[in-house]
Amino acid sequence: MRVGVLTGGGDCPGLNAVIRGIVRKGVQEYGYDFVGFKDGWRGPLEGDAIRLDIPAVRGILPRGGTILGSSRTNPLKVQDGIRRIKDNLAKQEIQALIAIGGEDTLGVAARLSGEYGVPCVGVPKTIDNDLSATDYTFGFDTAVNIATEAIDRLHTTAESHMRVLVVEVMGRHAGWIALHSGLAGGANVILIPEQRFDVDQVCDWVTSRFRASYAPIVVVAEGAMPKDGDMVLKDQSLDSFGHVRLSGVGEWLAKEIEKRTGKEARTTVLGHVQRGGTPSAFDRWLATRFGLHAIDCVREGDFGKMVALRGTDIVRVPLADATAKLKTVDPKLYEEVGVFFG
Amino acid sequence: MRVGVLTGGGDCPGLNAVIRGIVRKGVQEYGYDFVGFKDGWRGPLEGDAIRLDIPAVRGILPRGGTILGSSRTNPLKVQDGIRRIKDNLAKQEIQALIAIGGEDTLGVAARLSGEYGVPCVGVPKTIDNDLSATDYTFGFDTAVNIATEAIDRLHTTAESHMRVLVVEVMGRHAGWIALHSGLAGGANVILIPEQRFDVDQVCDWVTSRFRASYAPIVVVAEGAMPKDGDMVLKDQSLDSFGHVRLSGVGEWLAKEIEKRTGKEARTTVLGHVQRGGTPSAFDRWLATRFGLHAIDCVREGDFGKMVALRGTDIVRVPLADATAKLKTVDPKLYEEVGVFFG
Amino acid sequence: MRVGVLTGGGDCPGLNAVIRGIVRKGVQEYGYDFVGFKDGWRGPLEGDAIRLDIPAVRGILPRGGTILGSSRTNPLKVQDGIRRIKDNLAKQEIQALIAIGGEDTLGVAARLSGEYGVPCVGVPKTIDNDLSATDYTFGFDTAVNIATEAIDRLHTTAESHMRVLVVEVMGRHAGWIALHSGLAGGANVILIPEQRFDVDQVCDWVTSRFRASYAPIVVVAEGAMPKDGDMVLKDQSLDSFGHVRLSGVGEWLAKEIEKRTGKEARTTVLGHVQRGGTPSAFDRWLATRFGLHAIDCVREGDFGKMVALRGTDIVRVPLADATAKLKTVDPKLYEEVGVFFG
Amino acid sequence: MRVGVLTGGGDCPGLNAVIRGIVRKGVQEYGYDFVGFKDGWRGPLEGDAIRLDIPAVRGILPRGGTILGSSRTNPLKVQDGIRRIKDNLAKQEIQALIAIGGEDTLGVAARLSGEYGVPCVGVPKTIDNDLSATDYTFGFDTAVNIATEAIDRLHTTAESHMRVLVVEVMGRHAGWIALHSGLAGGANVILIPEQRFDVDQVCDWVTSRFRASYAPIVVVAEGAMPKDGDMVLKDQSLDSFGHVRLSGVGEWLAKEIEKRTGKEARTTVLGHVQRGGTPSAFDRWLATRFGLHAIDCVREGDFGKMVALRGTDIVRVPLADATAKLKTVDPKLYEEVGVFFG
Repeated sequence: MRVGVLTGGGDCPGLNAVIRGIVRKGVQEYGYDFVGFKDGWRGPLEGDAIRLDIPAVRGILPRGGTILGSSRTNPLKVQDGIRRIKDNLAKQEIQALIAIGGEDTLGVAARLSGEYGVPCVGVPKTIDNDLSATDYTFGFDTAVNIATEAIDRLHTTAESHMRVLVVEVMGRHAGWIALHSGLAGGANVILIPEQRFDVDQVCDWVTSRFRASYAPIVVVAEGAMPKDGDMVLKDQSLDSFGHVRLSGVGEWLAKEIEKRTGKEARTTVLGHVQRGGTPSAFDRWLATRFGLHAIDCVREGDFGKMVALRGTDIVRVPLADATAKLKTVDPKLYEEVGVFFG
Repeated sequence: MRVGVLTGGGDCPGLNAVIRGIVRKGVQEYGYDFVGFKDGWRGPLEGDAIRLDIPAVRGILPRGGTILGSSRTNPLKVQDGIRRIKDNLAKQEIQALIAIGGEDTLGVAARLSGEYGVPCVGVPKTIDNDLSATDYTFGFDTAVNIATEAIDRLHTTAESHMRVLVVEVMGRHAGWIALHSGLAGGANVILIPEQRFDVDQVCDWVTSRFRASYAPIVVVAEGAMPKDGDMVLKDQSLDSFGHVRLSGVGEWLAKEIEKRTGKEARTTVLGHVQRGGTPSAFDRWLATRFGLHAIDCVREGDFGKMVALRGTDIVRVPLADATAKLKTVDPKLYEEVGVFFG
Repeated sequence: MRVGVLTGGGDCPGLNAVIRGIVRKGVQEYGYDFVGFKDGWRGPLEGDAIRLDIPAVRGILPRGGTILGSSRTNPLKVQDGIRRIKDNLAKQEIQALIAIGGEDTLGVAARLSGEYGVPCVGVPKTIDNDLSATDYTFGFDTAVNIATEAIDRLHTTAESHMRVLVVEVMGRHAGWIALHSGLAGGANVILIPEQRFDVDQVCDWVTSRFRASYAPIVVVAEGAMPKDGDMVLKDQSLDSFGHVRLSGVGEWLAKEIEKRTGKEARTTVLGHVQRGGTPSAFDRWLATRFGLHAIDCVREGDFGKMVALRGTDIVRVPLADATAKLKTVDPKLYEEVGVFFG
Repeated sequence: MRVGVLTGGGDCPGLNAVIRGIVRKGVQEYGYDFVGFKDGWRGPLEGDAIRLDIPAVRGILPRGGTILGSSRTNPLKVQDGIRRIKDNLAKQEIQALIAIGGEDTLGVAARLSGEYGVPCVGVPKTIDNDLSATDYTFGFDTAVNIATEAIDRLHTTAESHMRVLVVEVMGRHAGWIALHSGLAGGANVILIPEQRFDVDQVCDWVTSRFRASYAPIVVVAEGAMPKDGDMVLKDQSLDSFGHVRLSGVGEWLAKEIEKRTGKEARTTVLGHVQRGGTPSAFDRWLATRFGLHAIDCVREGDFGKMVALRGTDIVRVPLADATAKLKTVDPKLYEEVGVFFG
């Protein structure tokens, strides 16, 4: 059996651990051969691949990033994309494909598997943890630890200068990183995309914190939005690739807080450090087990499936579930955490 | 309502986060008063308590240890212990008691609650993660991260000198810390109390690793035992408190490996560093939520219960479950991880 | 003897370690009393002080920030400032004052000591390490470690996506943090305020790195400037306190690199996390020794002096040296490090 | 020019950074070729070498250990050792040799250079920092940071259980790691090899700490010894290589403290984790600069020299200085730190 592996979408700590799990078990226990496609779907599209054997995956467990490279190439948007992939898989005698990626990457795998008869298995990856089908995704715990450590550090600066510190963390559509790191870091306000925030309410919490002689930390997900439509979050400039630069809720909010409370406020945008570097122990454990179970799907011919975490078990769900529903923060959970605001 | 809180048994990162969660919600939302008993069951036994209010719990979230102190005092083994506790609770007008602790501490709470009519709620604590009633306990993730970081560091020493490095981690009856940190740290052998090990098999793995030109790391839980009864693990000396000093499987194993393989072997016993210091983000999250839900049990008069984690939900189970069954490593899971041995 | 202590200027890990060193030695060895003035020079100006004794400094060694608070209040710019300070010191029977701070704070101490006869001792503090009189200042090593760890993390993101990552670190007038963290983090370009940079040269390095199939990391000090005057670094908005927001060289440079090389580039601004949180072991050592030697200056009546590090020795230099000359990066050292560019 | 490089003696974070510095500058600026000898002096003795070029040193800066391997092979104790080395160097057309190592490794280099006309340059390496010729050696800062972090963690365990915690750190002949980490970690007693300790004095400090309602941390260097000769530190067993296992001052001291004070005491032996893993930013900086300056020595034909740190400068000293005098802790410095005992 010859199996292809690819990693698509944004960087995420644990990708290499998945690859290593797949290859170690596939080679040792099942005697499979492996091919690693480069840069997500670009690899099978262009036939760009490397050999993946045990020496190739040695030492990669603690390393962030992905030895296979990644991209956002979407073969469904490329002329003849599917056919070219099928041709390249056939040419390389690939009998099964394991795709590690987010909504977009797995969406392609779901269609390849369902409509075009390419035997695919998926491994879910989203640093934002916003996938309904699984309790957690790898990379999330690492991001939360990094953000929490940053918030820990910012407390002392806030206290020493009696300033408001606004920390913008990742999370465009779901507030999981903000919620977990904000709670773990002892933030005084946590703002998430799921619930539009009221700037005056934020300012009340800020003021109440100062009254207790402490300086407030406000954690805000990059996708959080104020209630009133008066915010222009995005500086509308496009980068040279035509993407709108998403940025600004943190900076905007700090200015509003200064204006309304008269207190000095500063912003820290954590950015890419949240998604790079060595994975936490939890993420290495989860990612490795995802890899081991993905190759078992292949072994058992259980295609069109994705591995997922339920409690402490690795289960299998339909690949289509990967794109079915965004897992957002339950309002009840947000309310539960709200006891620490102010 | 006046609520007592105590922490019993061994140190564990996250204890302060539980206390803070209980007090913040209890005071702010329900208007309760809190009393913190000192040093586990010694506190209510001797009437030794401090006031717990919001200022008392400020800033304790990231701090390891417990602001209430701990002990292994067991009132069931003390003359008139239960009566004295009931008297002291009555004297201080305590109407509910939240006990945070392991098997022993919660065993007392279960009996107090079940047989003596003292309204108790339990919060489970075991750094070893060996409690069946809950998916995870707080402190465990921190311990695994610390052990994993140590293993990461030891790899380079092993490689540079082509030595065997044996790392002894916590776990007397269950191998969870060894299993998780060993997997996450890329160990070549993991030995757990649940399954007696064969020294010759260990030596085979060690030798096979050297053949691949790499140096092996062997992670061994303190409670792991060899198959043949020829090991004298414990140096039988008693400490000044009459406890047998448990120590030695790591040191013993390193000597055996040297003897049988002719390769130099060294041991590192991680010891107390695994259970001290600031909790990981996951443990702060879990411990805080345990605290919030424990005070909700009190609010709802739902006594004789213990909070537990199931998937991503906090649930309630009978306090008696805390002592019902040790959660050991499933042989299938151990076998799954075994693909990385050698 | 009654001694006053104050901390002025920006936050810096190690401030509490200095205070603890002063108080522990002053109380235990010399039997002094201590008064801590709040918020830098605002404290003595307004007579706002707390008692500093051994219990007050327990447990503060590993904590970032300053238990005394800080501010940028400058008594020389306040009506009758000096007289009010002298009055308040007299009222509290303060016989010596230890000022811990940067150029501004120590500049006031120098004048108080030299022109107004107030017995002052200085402890230098600048996270930027830009003080000629001392080999290193505390806080700098912590900042460099934090920045290095961030760069370590960003490498994997850069590699996985073959992107340029620009990291903006602290350093308005001197490039020490950029130089040390850039070298330690394996950056491919390091830009410092001491030497105007040529964007085309930067793009050449970036391109050459990509040619070697690696993704470049560019570390840029916030005060670095391009050669040609065409950059508008500052968005000219003022914050609510009338300060120009200094920001932008990182963001600006990323856009230029994208424009000129056609490669995707992203910016991370490390910001306040560099100056908060627990100090590194080196900074705890240095700050503590500064404290111990500062109180020895008081003991010996050696006023108008500042403690400084020379090799491994703590020496004393005139307080005036604190403001004498900015320690910038030697062009030879920058050239030495330049071997790693590209 | 063809240059040989080797690393000898114990593992030390920063070795790879030295190698990278040598090769990057040597290849890029001077056009040299490099050969890496394997496992210290065993490499040139047996002619075991690999090619060292720029791709070979990519990515090694943050990695602990040494890509060249290490050993304690001493050619002076091997029949015809020197002649064989000279032959192998000639055979490989090596015109200069850079030896990175401690007293033993550099002692060989000194004799090779001085008596046998082999052009050698030395880079000093001792994790214990006990070399007179240089202010600091790389690896030391990393070890101190690791030990300090461990002590930070142990404080909370000590406090929660009101126990004595004894931490044994590296340092057979010099107490630098104990002194720096003990001070930085806020230890209550620090014991070093330079000064025999009085167990009763230690117990007084321990008792006084308990009286203040805090639990004591005792940091002890592995080479520290009690005043009275009644200690049997070494369990006299030999390992399979005939080395006496040095161990025990920590364990021994904990037992004595228990016996004499009646307080529970526990020991943690930090062991190999202190010398493995990624180097701190300071050590990466120092090690890299040592590498850059070592290759400059070769360039300038300045053989028989060793690079060293003086203040912030890298200087050159005679290779013989490497073995001239152990740098032990100055009694005055130990006394200075002693203010924190008890």
